[in-house]
Amino acid sequence: MMTKDELLAIKTEEPDMSVYALAKESFDSLAKPIDGFGYMEDIICRIASIRGRDCDISKKTLIVMCADNGVVEEGVSQTDQAVTAEVAALLGQGKSTVGVMCSGCGIKIIPVDIGIDTDDTIPGVIDKRIARGTKNITKTKAMTEEECLKAIGAGIDIAKECAQNGIGMIATGEMGIGNTTTSTALFCALTGRNATGVAGRGAGLSDAGLTKKINAIEDALLLHGLGVMTPTPSKTFEALCAVGGLDIAALAGVFIGCALHKIPVVIDGAISAVAALTASYIVPGCEDYMIASHKGRERITGEVLDILGLHAVIDADMALGEGTGAVMLFPMIDMVMNVFINGTRFSDTDILQYERFDG
Amino acid sequence: MMTKDELLAIKTEEPDMSVYALAKESFDSLAKPIDGFGYMEDIICRIASIRGRDCDISKKTLIVMCADNGVVEEGVSQTDQAVTAEVAALLGQGKSTVGVMCSGCGIKIIPVDIGIDTDDTIPGVIDKRIARGTKNITKTKAMTEEECLKAIGAGIDIAKECAQNGIGMIATGEMGIGNTTTSTALFCALTGRNATGVAGRGAGLSDAGLTKKINAIEDALLLHGLGVMTPTPSKTFEALCAVGGLDIAALAGVFIGCALHKIPVVIDGAISAVAALTASYIVPGCEDYMIASHKGRERITGEVLDILGLHAVIDADMALGEGTGAVMLFPMIDMVMNVFINGTRFSDTDILQYERFDG
Repeated sequence: MMTKDELLAIKTEEPDMSVYALAKESFDSLAKPIDGFGYMEDIICRIASIRGRDCDISKKTLIVMCADNGVVEEGVSQTDQAVTAEVAALLGQGKSTVGVMCSGCGIKIIPVDIGIDTDDTIPGVIDKRIARGTKNITKTKAMTEEECLKAIGAGIDIAKECAQNGIGMIATGEMGIGNTTTSTALFCALTGRNATGVAGRGAGLSDAGLTKKINAIEDALLLHGLGVMTPTPSKTFEALCAVGGLDIAALAGVFIGCALHKIPVVIDGAISAVAALTASYIVPGCEDYMIASHKGRERITGEVLDILGLHAVIDADMALGEGTGAVMLFPMIDMVMNVFINGTRFSDTDILQYERFDG
Repeated sequence: MMTKDELLAIKTEEPDMSVYALAKESFDSLAKPIDGFGYMEDIICRIASIRGRDCDISKKTLIVMCADNGVVEEGVSQTDQAVTAEVAALLGQGKSTVGVMCSGCGIKIIPVDIGIDTDDTIPGVIDKRIARGTKNITKTKAMTEEECLKAIGAGIDIAKECAQNGIGMIATGEMGIGNTTTSTALFCALTGRNATGVAGRGAGLSDAGLTKKINAIEDALLLHGLGVMTPTPSKTFEALCAVGGLDIAALAGVFIGCALHKIPVVIDGAISAVAALTASYIVPGCEDYMIASHKGRERITGEVLDILGLHAVIDADMALGEGTGAVMLFPMIDMVMNVFINGTRFSDTDILQYERFDG
């Protein structure tokens, strides 16, 4: 098992910005207006800078980290905890929402049990269970440092396996009742924001439920002394252990692993976004490998993307989880990538190339 | 040929909102959080209310209206007018940007020459040429009422043919050098907005070019007395003749035709959006059949969508034309439609259905 010191010592390489520049030149040579694809051109150029000039992202995977959260006993969710295992079972059968969305799309889905509260092994779900959920963050730490390191390590390992299997691009998703509470708590810890200003209704909370959620987050931040902190790598890791979740830790591992193995990785919604922020604070530089997909209903998603300097090209007020927003970006990327690779260039035509003005 | 009176007498039926309500109920019965797909659920429910409960949109088409604009002689574009015919030729060969984007996606592209300035017939492009481009709107009317009616009629006819061929959904696109100038002029005429506040750089204008564009729009509005007007059906038609384009008129016809033949129709960027607004002012009610796709770089696109009460789920700063933004919505719709039709329902599982709170 990786130690905390080993985790904090991880270094990533920067993507090759000379390849980015070449890719941008290539876009400008296509028979279309300069910057015509807007942010999509930046996404493709960033993929090129990560993957190298051949830009092979034909094989794509969605990793869905599933885990339970002890804080659910504070009444922060409309449904009970058993739903995590039930939806994970659907994920294993390809019948959950994201499974049906992606059927026929050629996107491989890897559901992972990183900490579901059940005795059973769930068919079709990779068993990496570290604990039967986290502890209640309003009473004690969510997990031990050892559990957290194991979860991060599991995420790094899965990214490595994906790299070995030729996966060119990864989307991140999660399933875990109560995980907008943990991710919002962690977001508040890392940014100093107040829970009242940012907490959302998750999968559909009533007003009373939202109040309980805000109270639980405030209680947890107070208990763990996370009111005002500088998110150094070490302090970020400690905050993750205190108020995070096994899903968030494992997703942070996926983000770190993607940076290590040079795979562009798509952020989904709130939980995934907070995991991305956590990863970038623990291993600075891994944000260079992240791509935003959508600005969902939970406010913290957009706030994290702003901190990371990323723009979401999908704005659909989604609040579903499972990686549903992240996978929606894939066909959009494929369409533009097709033009990037196979498009008609000005040099193939009689059309004079457009000029770039800085005015 | 249709007369102006016949055009203004067109009536459309309202989509069946009881089917919308049934579709929304069906979404709530899916094993996912309430409203989890956000705006995408509204899009699917609207499609259901238009198409009926079977919701068949498996066959999709992009109609690209191509035309030239006399106002180009005012220096409002970086490229010369010949590019319209050249890109139309690429469209005919399936080699233009949108053609390459959609290759392998099963989206049929119908390029239409509604007024390109050339003597030649362009292979692969449907010849509905009404004139060799419009006149210079800073000197005279863009087109006669007869030309405009012919262009609108051509759009209606193509939508009708699509309906006869079982097309379930249509995207709108255009190609025409100078058409952000004409569409911005028409937008200003219909809304009373000032050109300085809304005119954009089209396919990439320099500062000097942008000034020429704004001047041309202001000159045209002044010449045709379009400063302050109430956009009645008749006045809207007259403004379209005065400062519009054959592409805009034909696209307005497509929007009207889609409403008549109950086909949901996707708005692309600025030109398409202004055509949609024009159609909704000439034949009130046809906006019920329109679906927004993206908020592009040209400011007027977002402003038109606001007026029409539509939300764009793609926000990618695109400025390409040809319907490139509209077709990006298709795979997103397909993914969610797949869940709508084939998704797992709470009744298939042991999971308790989520409750809808209004709080």
